[in-house]
Amino acid sequence: RTDGDRLWTALMDLAKLGATPKGGVNRQALTDLDRQARDLFIEWCRAEGCSVRIDVIGNIFARRQGRDPDRPAVLAGSHIDTQPTGGKYDGCFGVLAGLEVIRTLNQHGVETRAPIEVVAWTNEEGCRFPPCMMGSGVFTGQLGLEAMLARTDDEGVTVGDALDAIGYRGRDAIATSEIEAYFEAHIEQGPILEDTGNTIGVVIGALGQKWFDLTLTGVEAHAGPTPMALRKDALMGAAEMALAVNRIANARQPHGRGTVGSMKLHPGSRNVIPGQVTMSVDLRHLEPEALDAMVEELDAAVDEISARHGLTAELTPTADFAPEHFDETCVSAVREASRQLACSCMDIVSGAGHDAIFVGRVAPSAMIFVPCENGISHNESENATPEDLHSGCNVLLHAMLKIAEI
Amino acid sequence: RTDGDRLWTALMDLAKLGATPKGGVNRQALTDLDRQARDLFIEWCRAEGCSVRIDVIGNIFARRQGRDPDRPAVLAGSHIDTQPTGGKYDGCFGVLAGLEVIRTLNQHGVETRAPIEVVAWTNEEGCRFPPCMMGSGVFTGQLGLEAMLARTDDEGVTVGDALDAIGYRGRDAIATSEIEAYFEAHIEQGPILEDTGNTIGVVIGALGQKWFDLTLTGVEAHAGPTPMALRKDALMGAAEMALAVNRIANARQPHGRGTVGSMKLHPGSRNVIPGQVTMSVDLRHLEPEALDAMVEELDAAVDEISARHGLTAELTPTADFAPEHFDETCVSAVREASRQLACSCMDIVSGAGHDAIFVGRVAPSAMIFVPCENGISHNESENATPEDLHSGCNVLLHAMLKIAEI
Ligand SMILES: NC(=O)NCCC(=O)O
Ligand SMILES: NC(=O)NCCC(=O)O
Repeated sequence: RTDGDRLWTALMDLAKLGATPKGGVNRQALTDLDRQARDLFIEWCRAEGCSVRIDVIGNIFARRQGRDPDRPAVLAGSHIDTQPTGGKYDGCFGVLAGLEVIRTLNQHGVETRAPIEVVAWTNEEGCRFPPCMMGSGVFTGQLGLEAMLARTDDEGVTVGDALDAIGYRGRDAIATSEIEAYFEAHIEQGPILEDTGNTIGVVIGALGQKWFDLTLTGVEAHAGPTPMALRKDALMGAAEMALAVNRIANARQPHGRGTVGSMKLHPGSRNVIPGQVTMSVDLRHLEPEALDAMVEELDAAVDEISARHGLTAELTPTADFAPEHFDETCVSAVREASRQLACSCMDIVSGAGHDAIFVGRVAPSAMIFVPCENGISHNESENATPEDLHSGCNVLLHAMLKIAEI
Repeated sequence: RTDGDRLWTALMDLAKLGATPKGGVNRQALTDLDRQARDLFIEWCRAEGCSVRIDVIGNIFARRQGRDPDRPAVLAGSHIDTQPTGGKYDGCFGVLAGLEVIRTLNQHGVETRAPIEVVAWTNEEGCRFPPCMMGSGVFTGQLGLEAMLARTDDEGVTVGDALDAIGYRGRDAIATSEIEAYFEAHIEQGPILEDTGNTIGVVIGALGQKWFDLTLTGVEAHAGPTPMALRKDALMGAAEMALAVNRIANARQPHGRGTVGSMKLHPGSRNVIPGQVTMSVDLRHLEPEALDAMVEELDAAVDEISARHGLTAELTPTADFAPEHFDETCVSAVREASRQLACSCMDIVSGAGHDAIFVGRVAPSAMIFVPCENGISHNESENATPEDLHSGCNVLLHAMLKIAEI
């Protein structure tokens, strides 16, 4: 068993870097606070005798050698960057649970055949430098290195310059073939485990995501003198589209999701008919065919609704992640570990994107979810219990050992 | 007949103060540009021999004496402040048409029995200092002087301080009983005259307005991991409300209007379910009973829609202007003047608020509309033809003379 107190202490120590008054963490990717967190993580890993490597996009790999050093490693990890109003657990739990696995093996003098390795992926959140999951995307070849190094934040700073500034543009070339399996422990970021009273979510896959920007253009006009019949109110189309996005997802339960998170009205004045509305659309589903069908329905709704309201419409894709079904062997290792440890568990699908989704395309992977309070994350009030985090860490240890072999 | 070229020249000269690169005007109330425009207007009035008075809220009255100096004046006017992206005609036309009436009478040596007076009301637009129609509201006792002097702009400057800064906090006490009739010439700000091919709108009344802020609160959550059935998406309620506002107005044609001009999503991130939406509602109608019924339907829609989506709702009134039916004698004077001058005309209702609505509560009033291109105003592309403006000015002259008597 891992040491729950030690895990908790590490989480709380890391959370001090960028701590916010409301109990959250603001430690965005490649800032000096991120550097401090990276330095601390590496210090902890070196203290456990790990060798540390840093790749060209700043991903940090800390390896505890196995009896068979040429065998690929059993890897655990996640990320230590946060949202601007982030919490203490999103990402950090997966990294520090990996570290706690190594600390436990060292404490008990347990050797493994395969090396055990912990990774902290660069810029999973993508809030300072879009897109999200940048480090694992580059590592797995899903995102181009040069394109990513050229991405800029709001101040125009590039990822490359930011990596240099904090001294984390590494030189180590790490091959995906060095990974035998990857496990990522993470808070659920949703309400299902809490709702069903389960401690462990055995993550069998992740929803595919297709994101769009939709701009509807009508005619801006004065709210008083313009008769209803002569209006081209862009908000009428936008409102119907928001309801349509919801309907499209509702028709495909349990795995469909449809969200309009952002909507901007132009000019946005209370006595002016909105001449233009820009809005985001986020569609998700576990099955590629279902996701494609949802996009087709979205297209049809845009055409029908904009035509009916006399609007022009422009729908632009902004992100596209294929659905992921995790590796059956890794998933089984998580399920069996949960049962052996007598943790209540259920199969679950990740609704959110995670580094494991990219890694899963190049190596057998799985995830372990633990409950978070009210399903809330990306929020300073994000919360999880020490007991659940400890359980998740124990499951991680046992699942990794099943692959790495003692 | 008035001099159309002279009117046009005055409009173009005034439009230089605050001219924008796109051909509009940005001359917000009580700025130094407003001071320059006021100074120029007063200079023009004094050149015509008018005596100028300025009241406690900065309204400027320029009087051409009549044969019977104790008789109340026949007043014309509007405002010379503009929206930040305003045009050359909204407001300025009514003031400079009044000035052109005086210039024409002087040119032809015409005496009137009643005095002829021109007014430029302070802060009609209300964009820097809400509410709109502040000067006429204070003059007519509809808005409290002390409360209005204490209103602040975004920088915290009060109306009182801004009046002092430009030297336009006046000392003249002007009684509403000094007004025999009030005529306001204005661009229509809507598409009806253009649509029907009429030059003059004989404004018989103005829609009442009831404005609200509506806040719908649900639960902010991650767009991926939160199943559709467990959401409380504030945008679902807001979208239905926007459609309901439209429906409520559509059911009451030709005089119903319903507009949601502003809508803000919190947190407004593309992969977060909106936890809160704040939106504006603007309802208008010519009949008080119909307007009240629209508000009742709005209340019912808020209750039904928020309950169905599990949201809490807060509906706060932010403005309330009663419908206005203009004085029959003044309206007839406008209609007859149009016919005598062989201008095509139609009865029309003002959808927008105007100073004449407040003045109409204390003195017989009417308005004269001229077409504006595509019905567009509050926009730098606002446009009107010299011919239509000249026609409107001629109608103003003749309508005023009917009351003032030669
Ligand atoms: N885990 C996580 O919050 N990923 C962000 C991308 C998304 O799933 O919306
Ligand atoms: N004339 C005008 O634009 N008034 C502003 C108030 C309104 O009617 O919305």
